[in-house]
Amino acid sequence: MVEKSMTGYRGIAGSILDTFRVGIWSDVVIESSKGRFSGLILPRSETADDKHVVLKLASGYNIGVAAEAITKITEHGRREAHYKIPEKQFPVDDRKPNVTLLGTGGTIASRLDYRTGAVIPAFSPGELYGSVPELADICNLRTEKLYGVFSENMGPEQYIRLAERVGEEIRAGVDGIVIGHGTDTMHHTAAILTFMIQNPPVPIVMVGSQRSSDRPSSDAAINLINAVKAAAEGDIAEVLVCMFGPTSDEYCLLHRGTRVRKMHSSYRSTFRTIGDIPVAMVDPDGIRDLRDDYRRRRDDRDVTINTAFEEKVTILYYYPNMQPDIVDAIVDNGYRGIVIAGTGLGHINKPLYGAIKRATDKGVHIYMTVQTLWGYVQMYVYETGREIMELGVVPAANMLPEVAYVKLCWALGQTGDRDEVRHIMLTPISDETTDREPYNGYLIFQGAIPEVQEFLRSIKR
Amino acid sequence: MVEKSMTGYRGIAGSILDTFRVGIWSDVVIESSKGRFSGLILPRSETADDKHVVLKLASGYNIGVAAEAITKITEHGRREAHYKIPEKQFPVDDRKPNVTLLGTGGTIASRLDYRTGAVIPAFSPGELYGSVPELADICNLRTEKLYGVFSENMGPEQYIRLAERVGEEIRAGVDGIVIGHGTDTMHHTAAILTFMIQNPPVPIVMVGSQRSSDRPSSDAAINLINAVKAAAEGDIAEVLVCMFGPTSDEYCLLHRGTRVRKMHSSYRSTFRTIGDIPVAMVDPDGIRDLRDDYRRRRDDRDVTINTAFEEKVTILYYYPNMQPDIVDAIVDNGYRGIVIAGTGLGHINKPLYGAIKRATDKGVHIYMTVQTLWGYVQMYVYETGREIMELGVVPAANMLPEVAYVKLCWALGQTGDRDEVRHIMLTPISDETTDREPYNGYLIFQGAIPEVQEFLRSIKR
Repeated sequence: MVEKSMTGYRGIAGSILDTFRVGIWSDVVIESSKGRFSGLILPRSETADDKHVVLKLASGYNIGVAAEAITKITEHGRREAHYKIPEKQFPVDDRKPNVTLLGTGGTIASRLDYRTGAVIPAFSPGELYGSVPELADICNLRTEKLYGVFSENMGPEQYIRLAERVGEEIRAGVDGIVIGHGTDTMHHTAAILTFMIQNPPVPIVMVGSQRSSDRPSSDAAINLINAVKAAAEGDIAEVLVCMFGPTSDEYCLLHRGTRVRKMHSSYRSTFRTIGDIPVAMVDPDGIRDLRDDYRRRRDDRDVTINTAFEEKVTILYYYPNMQPDIVDAIVDNGYRGIVIAGTGLGHINKPLYGAIKRATDKGVHIYMTVQTLWGYVQMYVYETGREIMELGVVPAANMLPEVAYVKLCWALGQTGDRDEVRHIMLTPISDETTDREPYNGYLIFQGAIPEVQEFLRSIKR
Repeated sequence: MVEKSMTGYRGIAGSILDTFRVGIWSDVVIESSKGRFSGLILPRSETADDKHVVLKLASGYNIGVAAEAITKITEHGRREAHYKIPEKQFPVDDRKPNVTLLGTGGTIASRLDYRTGAVIPAFSPGELYGSVPELADICNLRTEKLYGVFSENMGPEQYIRLAERVGEEIRAGVDGIVIGHGTDTMHHTAAILTFMIQNPPVPIVMVGSQRSSDRPSSDAAINLINAVKAAAEGDIAEVLVCMFGPTSDEYCLLHRGTRVRKMHSSYRSTFRTIGDIPVAMVDPDGIRDLRDDYRRRRDDRDVTINTAFEEKVTILYYYPNMQPDIVDAIVDNGYRGIVIAGTGLGHINKPLYGAIKRATDKGVHIYMTVQTLWGYVQMYVYETGREIMELGVVPAANMLPEVAYVKLCWALGQTGDRDEVRHIMLTPISDETTDREPYNGYLIFQGAIPEVQEFLRSIKR
């Protein structure tokens, strides 16, 4: 490392560091017109702008401070970040199950890139073993990076490749699959995989982390260990999301791919099963079933891969005073499917009726879901619902809007026939609709903790 | 009542009733190719179609059974429904506070319309007193029906009239205001009223019911009693939503108008404060504060009414693989404002960047919110967020997407100046953005029950 290195800094940002005689790895307090910031100056990539100084805060977040706003920088020391993970040979044990970890770009373990200051995912079995040695107690791990995209950039190209690779791995005899994925759209990918990969004989477990492993409160290791455990040893042969549990730091929940949603932008316990209870709890000691209606692991290698996908589908998220031009524009742009997220039991306002009628007359397939997220579409209760059904809108029971969206993409990828699409949409494949929503599936999952349920029932204010 | 009356039935539906010698008020079991239904045949309006027989089920729901699918009807008796509410003179007591109930079309108490079979809101003070006599213990009640629309049809016309009438009532000296409203979009109306009615000296309490009072488990009376109590006696001079509490049948919660959302399509405890805790609990014995940072009741009559509203604003609810044509269509249709509900910390995919840039270049005002509902937009954390801000998208902290939508309508109704709009949007007026979200404001509100919080902390699995 170079003394007072300015790696990546130039222009106004470079000048300001020079003025105050600080450089990368300086532990500083920056005074600026935007506020006061304490942290470690990180290196920047050569292609970064010259207008910001990037600090790693104590919270683990990186922020960019506008150089022109800086009035003073005080150095309190220097500490080079050490995020390089010791790479070790992942031990092989023929008695242990074989798990394949497919990477899509989400961060699980990570290390700091010294050149750019970026946090780089650690991904080889050796790196993962060096970082999370517990993995070798569970399985033989093989890793494969399919691509590296932020999860908001996931789309059909990635879904299809992922489904096909999962199919190949299953046929090749793997005992379980883990998919590393960014958390933003993990639930969308989980849902489409439940339709594209049908009847898998082994667990397919998606995992990510809300806080990367360079942060003190990272959930990366616990999530990964539990996901690998569920894939290697679990009996639940479904597409699952394995993420941090809500009431304690000590376990993860396994959520069904079609009934899970990201519900907090930053908390670690962000994923919640909606309108149902999760399938199981998992911690390093074992997997505890919360229900017994799941598809069991099998010895055969039979799996059906169907990667159909029509891209011209959209979600119409209703709000009061929505104007018909929004619907008309969707139709005029050639969209073939619309999932409405309506209010209440599945409602939209009367001024939209004409545009909706025009859409269904033109052959657009329209399904109704509820933006309350919890509960069912029930369009027979009010006149509004009955009128909207008469326009050709089909109620989609308790399918989450995002799940109805990916399922409609998948259905329209297979057929344009109205009745066939309707049959596909309304026939449950992977619990995307359920006969009932249990009472304890609303808002918080308390079912994992019978004592809390008991307690809530018992107290009187 | 006519023996075996067929009121409202004709054509195929009339024939089928005739064939099986049943009529309105017959208690029947209908066998049909769509299933088997038990209930009471209700009268229909003269303008209703001739293709359905309408049954009131034991659950209280009305359903229409397609006449052509009916194979058999068996009558088990007849029972005329009695929903007529005894109308009594509402007692006046000069020592009690004066409350005005403004009706918008939501059902609070209700009675059956004998002619049409429809459930008609009971609304006059006399009807309400006959139905819910407890109201007279609390206040002198005056009622005024502003209009009768389903809440999904609420829009600026109704918001403006409502805000103006509230202003007039306040200036006329009323001690509190209750607004009856359908539940579907109650939270949208509550939010816009917090911007249109600023600094009110008295409580403005919105109320509705999830189950109308002709159903056994109706929440209509408890919600109304508690809302009137909060308006008459409460010290919280804000726009509030008063609805059924989540853990017991015995109280309602008072939610801030900007931090509340309908979260279940059918449960009575559907309204939840998001990313915060409610303001208070209320039951017939009193109002129990859950926080003390609210605006207090005052004796003055100073209130600012600002009914600005720009209609060309939309919500863009992001989903993976969203295409730029959706954004282009919004811009080409002359929309002036877009609220994005992004994934994670406030993200959209790269293929949209060009269309977003084009939109902001054309002067469209774009604000980012999170579709996780809980948590903050944080666009400085990832490169994606920083890039999206460079396109001109403004992060809206922890404003709910629906709240950001009505606030942007309101802001753009006042000015088109970029900086002024931004100033209005980012300056909190009614807690639409807050400095922090308390831990117990996530998913379930446990804060009302300290014992549960304690218990959750104490248990180890």
